[in-house]
Amino acid sequence: MRAVDIIIRKRDHFQLTKEEIKFFISGVVDGSIPDYQASAWAMAVLLNGMTDQETTELTLAMAESGETLDLSEIAPIVVDKHSTGGVGDKVTLVVTPLVASCGLPVGKMSGRGLGFSGGTLDKLDSIPGYRSDLSKQEFLDQLKEFGFVLTGQSADLAPADRILYKLRDVTGTVDSLPLIASSVMSKKIAGGANAIVLDVKVGNGAFMKTIEDARKLAETMIAIGKLSGRKVEALLSDMNQPLGVAVGNAVELREAIDTLHDGGPADFHEHCLVIASHMLLLGKKVSTLDEARAMAEDALKSGRAWEEFRALVIRQGGDVSFIDHPEKLPGAAVTYEMKAERDGFIAELRAQTVGETAVSLGAGRAKKEDSIDLGVGMYVRVKVGDQVKKGDVLFTILAKSEADAQAAAKRLATGIQWSDKPVEPLPLFYATKS
Amino acid sequence: MRAVDIIIRKRDHFQLTKEEIKFFISGVVDGSIPDYQASAWAMAVLLNGMTDQETTELTLAMAESGETLDLSEIAPIVVDKHSTGGVGDKVTLVVTPLVASCGLPVGKMSGRGLGFSGGTLDKLDSIPGYRSDLSKQEFLDQLKEFGFVLTGQSADLAPADRILYKLRDVTGTVDSLPLIASSVMSKKIAGGANAIVLDVKVGNGAFMKTIEDARKLAETMIAIGKLSGRKVEALLSDMNQPLGVAVGNAVELREAIDTLHDGGPADFHEHCLVIASHMLLLGKKVSTLDEARAMAEDALKSGRAWEEFRALVIRQGGDVSFIDHPEKLPGAAVTYEMKAERDGFIAELRAQTVGETAVSLGAGRAKKEDSIDLGVGMYVRVKVGDQVKKGDVLFTILAKSEADAQAAAKRLATGIQWSDKPVEPLPLFYATKS
Repeated sequence: MRAVDIIIRKRDHFQLTKEEIKFFISGVVDGSIPDYQASAWAMAVLLNGMTDQETTELTLAMAESGETLDLSEIAPIVVDKHSTGGVGDKVTLVVTPLVASCGLPVGKMSGRGLGFSGGTLDKLDSIPGYRSDLSKQEFLDQLKEFGFVLTGQSADLAPADRILYKLRDVTGTVDSLPLIASSVMSKKIAGGANAIVLDVKVGNGAFMKTIEDARKLAETMIAIGKLSGRKVEALLSDMNQPLGVAVGNAVELREAIDTLHDGGPADFHEHCLVIASHMLLLGKKVSTLDEARAMAEDALKSGRAWEEFRALVIRQGGDVSFIDHPEKLPGAAVTYEMKAERDGFIAELRAQTVGETAVSLGAGRAKKEDSIDLGVGMYVRVKVGDQVKKGDVLFTILAKSEADAQAAAKRLATGIQWSDKPVEPLPLFYATKS
Repeated sequence: MRAVDIIIRKRDHFQLTKEEIKFFISGVVDGSIPDYQASAWAMAVLLNGMTDQETTELTLAMAESGETLDLSEIAPIVVDKHSTGGVGDKVTLVVTPLVASCGLPVGKMSGRGLGFSGGTLDKLDSIPGYRSDLSKQEFLDQLKEFGFVLTGQSADLAPADRILYKLRDVTGTVDSLPLIASSVMSKKIAGGANAIVLDVKVGNGAFMKTIEDARKLAETMIAIGKLSGRKVEALLSDMNQPLGVAVGNAVELREAIDTLHDGGPADFHEHCLVIASHMLLLGKKVSTLDEARAMAEDALKSGRAWEEFRALVIRQGGDVSFIDHPEKLPGAAVTYEMKAERDGFIAELRAQTVGETAVSLGAGRAKKEDSIDLGVGMYVRVKVGDQVKKGDVLFTILAKSEADAQAAAKRLATGIQWSDKPVEPLPLFYATKS
């Protein structure tokens, strides 16, 4: 078998076999297939597509390219969730302790943020001492003994994905449905999950800009799940405007803490309940979505979810006083209130602009090696459909300096569209697929 | 400007600008654009195509990527010819001295063979002492003083093509019309030709398998010529069966010598007259194709073409006794006659099979670094449409050993299709485009 022939077959619209895909992926990982062949192949995949069968084989080959976790001894069903990434998305911080507090084992590996969507690990960095670098053995031990883990992805998990992603980033081959789907699912499968709830974001602040694209991605990932024996459910949720109010790192953690105390912004609170309900149902804790919803609501109301999160922070070495007293979390030197200069209805509140502004304040990374400022960010005080009066606060900007804050305000203004007539609010979710 | 954005634009079907193409090609040559970006770009070009304007800009950027020859001081019109490569194609050896003997300056840079189509330089290697490594200055001096040069391509001519071709070969990006057309034309333009006759081969033994593909390639190269101010004419000629009788290196040189003495196989003799006529017309030596034809025929009949070739060999350091007495040229240890095992008409005589068999005998290279045996090869004794009787010789195989010869015969047999009913002969040419 030769790499060039596999490239040519994909170029010529043939369906690649399991053996060809395995050969190609192991070659990419062991270095026998050079990056110039991998990038030509990725471009052929991007332009010619892959069948669900091929995408599944690719996912499994990538999952098996490094070590894989076998969680079957720990629990019959381990539930995982994945968000395709958005602005203000701190859902993991709420739903994982919530679900774990209901007795469903949760072993979650999260990532760091890149570009305008934040990463769960960056938000957890606000808690001094919190370890997100657990070893494989620590992960397994904690999941077994404690039933809940929230840490970073081990470098040895799906190394093919790491290599390919780096290459795709510089060769214009990121925006490929089978490559995105296999990237997400390979890590989940390598991580041992057998029930996965996918939060597929759609809108200007997400990777998928249209419902149609998001639906296709969801369907592809569900097909991979079916063909690989995993239960997968996907929710299409809105990312045209930010989720919740807080955008940043420490501020998002604070909002998650509020929500775990059964508070938090209404949209974010509701979003978390929906995701958690689907996780409980998929994990067979309950038999209907209504029961799941009741259980999730109770977990917040009773304080169980919060206690679970608190215990997790202690277990992973974090200084719990920082979440008990969130005012101790990193803050910013300057607080700047950006006010409405007119009356009207908010017609658009571009999540992408908000996310990019957060990055420009220092809350996110433009490049992987950038460091971030945990204290900066903003509170988004309005939602699409809100009626606003001149002088109302639109954003509370948390910045390093007055100049930064003013630049941010200028930038944020470009993300708002006004209307004189009432505007329909945006939905939270568009569809559920399974 | 960033390479990845140029890749993305081509991926997304945008037309690249002159500046983008120049940026990309100079980056490929100076190494600032790594090969994994070049190969992803090449795949996007292959799958999404290029407009004639883009292909012309690519050709010019590649032509200008190294040194270029300015022949305008030497002659107002310098004619060049290029064949896209075929089996038994020794046309250059006949038409260049023929045209030069008619007073039209010919500065021809040829290549070595790779795969099943042979290279002119390999055939010339049969003449001891013949130099095909002239420097740029030697090339220019000889063209000025002598009016005729036949040598190898300088490494400094169109280096972008050399880099890209090597990469395309291992990334499944060879079969792209704009990339093939720009590869051919960039070298011709860098070499200073302003009138170019293209011999575009079509058939199983050629790069272009169908008349439609060959026509498209011809049209693209003609468009490049128009847009870059060069006169280009293309002939579509058959390569379903080998051209002429001899296939190999020394044997093909012998056949060229026969033809320069106004002999040689009828098909090959005629093919050379047609190509030479078009060169004479394009080079403005005559004003009609009929005059050109008469001039070409006379050049062979009178011995002028032969004398020109003989003088060239002397000028480039070759031992002329080897062409005066071709029996001195390299031969093979074993001569094996493969005979027909049945009566019938030849319905197919696959050029590709003949070419591959020649390579397996040692007459060609599978890889660039392979060495070749100048004496081996074969004489193809039949043509499509011939009526053959059992026992008639089909091929005379010239091999290193009896075993080689028998293996070759076995292989050649797979390239023949028989018919009980009469079969139409194949045409020499399909079309002329300009």
